[in-house]
Parts: sequence; C-alpha cells; structure tokens
Amino acid sequence: MTAMEAEFLAWLAERLGPSQRSPVGLRDDAAVLDVGGSEPLVITTDLITDGVHFRLDRDDPRQIGHKALAVNLSDVAAMAARPLCAFVSLLVPARRGLELAQELYEGLLPLAERFGVEVAGGDTNTWSGPLVVNVALIGQATERGPLRRDGAKPGDQLLVTGCFGGSLGGHHLDFVPRVTEALTLHRDFRLHAGVDCSDGLSLDVSRICAASGCGAVIETAEVPIRPAAVALAADASDGCSALEHALSDGEDFELILAVPPDDAARIVRHNSLEVPLTRIGEFVAEPGLWQLAGGERRRLIPCGYEHGIDR
Amino acid sequence: MTAMEAEFLAWLAERLGPSQRSPVGLRDDAAVLDVGGSEPLVITTDLITDGVHFRLDRDDPRQIGHKALAVNLSDVAAMAARPLCAFVSLLVPARRGLELAQELYEGLLPLAERFGVEVAGGDTNTWSGPLVVNVALIGQATERGPLRRDGAKPGDQLLVTGCFGGSLGGHHLDFVPRVTEALTLHRDFRLHAGVDCSDGLSLDVSRICAASGCGAVIETAEVPIRPAAVALAADASDGCSALEHALSDGEDFELILAVPPDDAARIVRHNSLEVPLTRIGEFVAEPGLWQLAGGERRRLIPCGYEHGIDR
Repeated sequence: MTAMEAEFLAWLAERLGPSQRSPVGLRDDAAVLDVGGSEPLVITTDLITDGVHFRLDRDDPRQIGHKALAVNLSDVAAMAARPLCAFVSLLVPARRGLELAQELYEGLLPLAERFGVEVAGGDTNTWSGPLVVNVALIGQATERGPLRRDGAKPGDQLLVTGCFGGSLGGHHLDFVPRVTEALTLHRDFRLHAGVDCSDGLSLDVSRICAASGCGAVIETAEVPIRPAAVALAADASDGCSALEHALSDGEDFELILAVPPDDAARIVRHNSLEVPLTRIGEFVAEPGLWQLAGGERRRLIPCGYEHGIDR
Repeated sequence: MTAMEAEFLAWLAERLGPSQRSPVGLRDDAAVLDVGGSEPLVITTDLITDGVHFRLDRDDPRQIGHKALAVNLSDVAAMAARPLCAFVSLLVPARRGLELAQELYEGLLPLAERFGVEVAGGDTNTWSGPLVVNVALIGQATERGPLRRDGAKPGDQLLVTGCFGGSLGGHHLDFVPRVTEALTLHRDFRLHAGVDCSDGLSLDVSRICAASGCGAVIETAEVPIRPAAVALAADASDGCSALEHALSDGEDFELILAVPPDDAARIVRHNSLEVPLTRIGEFVAEPGLWQLAGGERRRLIPCGYEHGIDR
C-alpha cells in the first residue's frame, strides 16, 4: 500500500462510517455479509495490473490468470471460508486481445476447479492500455464462522504456514493459496485470529495486533526463509539480509495465525498438512511489534509493500 | 460488445460448460447464486475505463463514480432484485490519485445511499495508466424470484421505461437506474422476462428473443425518443435518423420487459411510477426481429454497442 492508498483508505473508512451489513467492513481481508442464509458470505476483490503486480513482457499469461484468482483465494482462506464463485473483469490490450484473454483463463480455470470455484460472471473489454485483471470472489464461512483478524489475545502463539521473502522471484505467480490448510485448521483447532501475508510478514502481523489491541514478539531465528530470499541477500544489491526480505517482502500469501498455546502446540506437533507450520513468536499485551534474537528484545518497525512490490 | 469480445464470450461459455451454482450463468444481466439463504443472490460486475466509457478530460469525476455504480445497479434492476452491497476496485493515475479517488466516491456514495447499497470492500491502486473503475454488486432476489431474460412468450407485450437514443449527450453519466421501478412492477404484476438496455434497444430486445426462443415486432412509431437523439439527427453528421439512434445507441439503461397482455394493459393504464412506461410492440412465435411502421412489417437488423459506445 502506498502512502496515497493508505491515506485514501483512512479517508474512506471515515467517510463510510460503521457498516451495518458487514461487521468487519473494510478492516479485514474480506467483507462478511449475512444474507439470511445458513452461514455468512465472505467477499473480496483484488485488481492486478501490468507493471505493478506482474509484467506481461516477461510473465506467462497463464500465471497472471492464476495469480489474479489466487490472491483472492488467499483472502478467503484468511477468513477460513469456502470459496464459491468468481467474477472476472478483464481489460485486455486490443492488439492480441482474444488470445491473451484465453490464455489468462487457461491459467485461472485449473485453480478454480481445484478449489471448487465457479466462474459465474465477468466483464471483458479491449482497450489501448495495459492488461488489467479484477477478480471478485464470493465464499461462505463454515459453521465455525469467519476467522477474523481482531481476535488475537496476549499469550496466543504466532504460527505461520510455509516460508517468507523473495516472492518476486516467482512464488508470487504460482503460489497455491492456503484454502485447504485454513479450513482444516479452523475445523480442528481453536484459532483466535488470522490474515494472509500479502504486504510483508512484519506489516501483516502488526495488522493483527492493531485490530486486536495487542502486540507481538517475533523470534527472528524461527522465521522460515524462502531460498529465493537467501539468494537475494547473497546478491546483496539492496543491502538487505535474508531475514529482512522475509520480514518485509510481501506477496508470500501464507497464513499468519494467532492460536491459543495448547492448540498451537498440538498443531505444530501433529501437523498433517502438506505445508510446514512454524511457531515464530507470540502475542503480548503491550501494543507494538518486537523482534527477539539472542535473548534480546528490540522494537521491530513493521514494513512491507512499498519496497516489496513496486517494481 | 466488439467482435473480439463476442468471440471471447462464446469461447468462454463453451469452455466453462453449464453452471452448477448459477442456473443463468453468463447468459443474463447478472449471475444468480443460491447460497442456502432465503432468496438467491444476484451478482454482477462491470468495469469502466477512461476513453471508452467516459472521458476524464471532459467528464466530472463525480459523474464517473455515479456511472460506475449505476451500470451495475441497472443490471441488478434487470433481474428485479434488491441491491445490497458493492465492492469497488479503482486504478487511479498517480498524479492526482487521492483527490480523484475521493471525487469518484463523492459521486458514487449518494447513489449507493439512495438505494441502500453498502460499499463493503474494494481495492484502490495507483498507477501510471488511465482511470479504471470496477464495481462488483451483490443483490438479492425478492420472494418472486429473479426476473430472467429467457421467459418471454409469444403474445407478451414489449414494454419499456423512459426513452431511448443519444445517451452519450449526458444521460449515460447521470441516469438513475430503474431499481425501484423493477421491484415495484415485479411485485405487482406478472413479468415474463426483462433486461436493461445497455447496448442498444434493438440489440437488447433481440437478446430476450434469443434467450426465450421467440421473436419480436417493434412498432417504431411508439418508440419513445430522447430529445438528445432528435438533436443528433438534426445535426445529421452521421446520417442517422432519431429513430435509428433510439434503436441502436445504447447506454439508455432503461428496462425492457416482456409482459402478458392483461398485465401489460394494466401497467400502462395505471402507471404510478415516476417514469413513463410505453408499449412498443410484442413478442411473436417466429424467431427474429421486425419493425412495424405504416402497417408494413420489415426485418430489423439488431444493432448497438459498436457504433453506439466506441468513441
């Protein structure tokens, strides 16, 4: 999120006031909407564009189509909801519009089928500008209700799936959103809060803290680092360590969870998921974010997105 | 719809196959989704862009925001559903991003409030390209069910709200979507089919025909013509008559309805709506579209969008 986008979102939240229909409104990964059905809906939308979220001159259109749906699936996973159907708006450059639109769908549809998502509508336009893909995704909470970001409590353990950093090396285009993992964990354990890591691990942890009115300590030695982040640090063109990449790069699309200690211990000990689950710290009463390394606790400035995604 | 967009949509419908969750899928103004609630949801999405659907160098950003929501409201009105909440994705030029985004919302929000729509989420990005606004709108059918386009029967009367043609003179930026009218008519009368007129009166009537497996005769002397269409014809730069504009310009966003004769007569006789309702013809068994003028019936080639919107 750029400074302008953050300023705008603050203005909009103020302008809109409290939501009647969606109790979490603009303040979570997805909106929650009760339509008088069995379980509330969980709805999210994400727009990706050439030059910002991908580069059409370099990336495979199938991967771009995959990513356009996957980033939304990741938001629905963060609410531990079941995805149902997607609405896809395309703006394709007229020059190779038809072929490009088909290739995008050939990347998007296998992911949709994998998670039982139906493409139920959309809007396809050609224009003279760059490629733009917007997906709106509708899911439904399970009987356990949606997993929100504002339920973390002091003493909760900070758990994450997968590893972090260096996503722009390729992971951001072919990642598998943690839909299955979120549904399984939410069904089998008590989870207090969750988000997906889109803007940077430290920044997204700080968002759970801000929403929940608490703080968190990240034990930096425990943070699982993606090999691509290690390679970036070795290359050292930007002077960042592998850990710094892991804490701030973003687009990891892993789950970040706040879990009561006994459930956290059981989750980590008996992990039957296909993806690693790691305890990387805990939530504390004092608001703020810290890193704990070599027995020393220091303030950690949450960072992400701005230097993580703008290319 | 350009030829490429039509070809792509045909490919996509084939590629996706029949829908499990939405019985009307890509073939109506909006998708219908049963989520186990009281009434099914009605969901639509529309993307508008600078240079195609508006011109930022000339049009007021508030009107652009209004239009972005209104085109979606018109689709939900075409299904005679109640709009509930909107998800707004913005791509704003970085140069004047914050101010522009705020102005867009200041045009969109009064319309949302008027129809009880909550902006429940969205995605705001800045970039170096032109302004793009995507809205996904979720509504809910009434107890009478969604109004579909595939229910017209021979003998049904062809009714329309408002007037047609010359929308680009300004109507397309400040129209009021026919949400109230659709809900009132659907509650009080039997309606067999309906669409909103977005791509041109003759083209949109032909879509009801194609979906319903019937034809229609338009009595051209009865078609209500917008004064802007008369002015366009007087200007005569393109050689089109006012009627031709009314039949093909598009972006009228009026309701086009197929109504059994007795209900149609009652609707027109006792119209208590704030907008005129006019009978302009009837549906017939033989597939195809005709115009009836001076007692003479001739084939009418459906046309719209391509010369109506591309500027």
